Amino acid sequence: MRQNTIDLTLEEIRAALEAENIHGAIQALHRLRPADRADAFSDLDDNSQQVLLTELDIETTADLLEELEDLTAADMADTLTTERLADVLDEMEPDEAADVLGDLTPERAAEALAEMEDAQEVIPLLEHEDETAGGLMTTSFIALSPENTANEAVQILRRIRPDTEIPYYLYVVDSNYRLTGIVGLRELVIASPANTVMEIMDPEVIYATTTMDQEVAANIMARYDLAALPVLNEEGRLQGVITHDDLYDVLEEEATEDIYRLANVADGDLTIHSPISLSVRRRLPWLFLNTLTALFAAWVISHYETLIAQIAILAVFQSVVAGMGGNAGTQSLAMVVRAIALGDISTRNALRTIVKEGGTGIIQGICVGIAVGLGVYLWKGNIFLGLVLCLALIGNMFVAVVVGTMVPLLLKAVKLDPALASSVLVTAVTDSVGFFLFLSLAAVFQGYL
Amino acid sequence: MRQNTIDLTLEEIRAALEAENIHGAIQALHRLRPADRADAFSDLDDNSQQVLLTELDIETTADLLEELEDLTAADMADTLTTERLADVLDEMEPDEAADVLGDLTPERAAEALAEMEDAQEVIPLLEHEDETAGGLMTTSFIALSPENTANEAVQILRRIRPDTEIPYYLYVVDSNYRLTGIVGLRELVIASPANTVMEIMDPEVIYATTTMDQEVAANIMARYDLAALPVLNEEGRLQGVITHDDLYDVLEEEATEDIYRLANVADGDLTIHSPISLSVRRRLPWLFLNTLTALFAAWVISHYETLIAQIAILAVFQSVVAGMGGNAGTQSLAMVVRAIALGDISTRNALRTIVKEGGTGIIQGICVGIAVGLGVYLWKGNIFLGLVLCLALIGNMFVAVVVGTMVPLLLKAVKLDPALASSVLVTAVTDSVGFFLFLSLAAVFQGYL
Repeated sequence: MRQNTIDLTLEEIRAALEAENIHGAIQALHRLRPADRADAFSDLDDNSQQVLLTELDIETTADLLEELEDLTAADMADTLTTERLADVLDEMEPDEAADVLGDLTPERAAEALAEMEDAQEVIPLLEHEDETAGGLMTTSFIALSPENTANEAVQILRRIRPDTEIPYYLYVVDSNYRLTGIVGLRELVIASPANTVMEIMDPEVIYATTTMDQEVAANIMARYDLAALPVLNEEGRLQGVITHDDLYDVLEEEATEDIYRLANVADGDLTIHSPISLSVRRRLPWLFLNTLTALFAAWVISHYETLIAQIAILAVFQSVVAGMGGNAGTQSLAMVVRAIALGDISTRNALRTIVKEGGTGIIQGICVGIAVGLGVYLWKGNIFLGLVLCLALIGNMFVAVVVGTMVPLLLKAVKLDPALASSVLVTAVTDSVGFFLFLSLAAVFQGYL
Repeated sequence: MRQNTIDLTLEEIRAALEAENIHGAIQALHRLRPADRADAFSDLDDNSQQVLLTELDIETTADLLEELEDLTAADMADTLTTERLADVLDEMEPDEAADVLGDLTPERAAEALAEMEDAQEVIPLLEHEDETAGGLMTTSFIALSPENTANEAVQILRRIRPDTEIPYYLYVVDSNYRLTGIVGLRELVIASPANTVMEIMDPEVIYATTTMDQEVAANIMARYDLAALPVLNEEGRLQGVITHDDLYDVLEEEATEDIYRLANVADGDLTIHSPISLSVRRRLPWLFLNTLTALFAAWVISHYETLIAQIAILAVFQSVVAGMGGNAGTQSLAMVVRAIALGDISTRNALRTIVKEGGTGIIQGICVGIAVGLGVYLWKGNIFLGLVLCLALIGNMFVAVVVGTMVPLLLKAVKLDPALASSVLVTAVTDSVGFFLFLSLAAVFQGYL
């Protein structure tokens, strides 16, 4: 339904632009909600985008830059005059403005900042790295003193009339701007007007620190069901707030990253809509890495070339052993990577997990091994071929689940992304070990095959 | 740090239980936040859990059931007396209580409902399927009439003193309970007390319907940055509200499901902490499916057994072609599955995506094909072997990306989960086509290898 609305509006915009009715095109665009507007805008050709961009008002342009993909937003921003860009950035949420500035050239960003009125809200955000809590937070929040009354707090809200990212929580800070408590808007509404903030605040605040990984901050919010999370610096001073909409983005972003990395697509920003050239540049290096491990597995097989020349049927079944190891290892890998992402695993239970997965692997290996062994015996009539297959499958599937479990845990232990390159490593091991186990066992039973 | 606190508290609880100091154990447990408390509780042995469960007060037991995994919560609930269970369910959020009731036997659920005081809040929730917007929503929300003033609304809030899932939004309904608008708590606070709700409400409400898939509802909330989403029935009557904490759960649940399914773990509820027997029961059927496709690929190879007996080196490199197809196909598969999950692809751009991925596949195939062909030529000194590998790689990697793109789109078109079984299908094709292409090309160049 949404896609329909966007498509119809797009047709209208294209027709209006065709007829050089820019005003009509802008009106049509305005009828969409900001998120949908960005989608429609992205679907227009470069020329139409340029025409619209010069005619849109500051506020709509700001909305648009907030909703567009990061790199598209930076490209758009780059085409604006410095003065106009500064006005647009002033209108944007500070955290979104900081993201755009971070994607511009340093010179261009400096020029824009010099022209901005609210530069002081954005500058502190620029120093934080992109994937940290500091890089995610916004500086637009409302801070109260513990001595304020509920009534004063309401007056402050009425005066500020916040129309920015929704302040469900107000933050209580001491004279050093250290966070001492938090007041929900709900508590404020139901309190007697004369109550002080100190009386109604919750002094036990859950918080993040500026340098904390955004995924960790996101897990805290999700775990404790928070709609907003204050971010403190090392001295405990309130620096900003992460809001629920940032969390949605992080949860989606981190899930995309894990799914991609398990499939050897290293760049989470890549989408199916990315141009072919970018897609190839990002995906091909990983395929080359895969190629190296595939050639390594081929090198393992090459040691048994003479054996295979004598017993060609080994070539028929060797891939079953290697492949089933890969499948079993991938299951473990996915489950451990996910458990790490959800903060569901710790050093304390890592060993227990390895033991448990190992047990699962052996049981699965025995089941699959017997099934394949029996099937191949019935098909080819050679009990020893079935036996070799069965033993190799048990061995390889056990190795597979152990490696599939340990690789992400080890990557995590050395502070790397547990999903990154892990499936390449797991496949490299299951292929090589699979071929080696099957062919070396076959060499032992050579006389009977 | 959190894990540390939980571990220390666990030690304390265990020591207290050891000394039969149940009161001390409960005190220690109480010091944790509800989410952490559930973690600590889950780590205790069955016996300790039972001892604690009989002594915990109703409110703490309710918190515990809300935070525990669904199936564990149902197991716990099952051990309570019907009277106690009814009290606990009354204390729980209606949507959480409905989830627990749904996991009990129908008889037990009916008994508990009969004893409950707030059964009427929970019963409407029981009729909705688990993974729909109706199954996700809660019935605890606040509805206003358009004629209410801001001041009256605040008085209503003060009277109800909602301490349940946080009502950032109040819902405005007409006399037929049809949703006509929405008022943010913020708007209410900054409005003049005499303003009517009609004057300050936003009449353009984004909503879900009870039968909508929870993933679709979640995407709407994430897309429009909503902290809550009203759910209407077919007549447009307000039935409930999905809150931001439900959304966090859905986003995590759906991401887990996709990651698992791409790795052939069909059950999203399975975790690395699940018992081995459950793990094997859920994972083994998929490995058997993999076994069948692996044996099919072996059958394809078996047609070339005589050829391999003559030219054993083919057995060394056949898996490179099959494996690289699998790797390329997996990349496309992951990207398309993710695009579908984020609502980032439609029938309109499906064809464009297939064409684009096909182009990417050919380019990648040419690059990998030339690299492998050249490498194998240098290694084995046979230019024809290199050529056969190169051609087979190009062909198989092209097929792989097209199949990797089309399989999830087709599954989606027939209303199945795009991630379910898709990687089995893609691997089945890339293996079989890979072996066939390489070996049949080798047969053509037989005299030169």
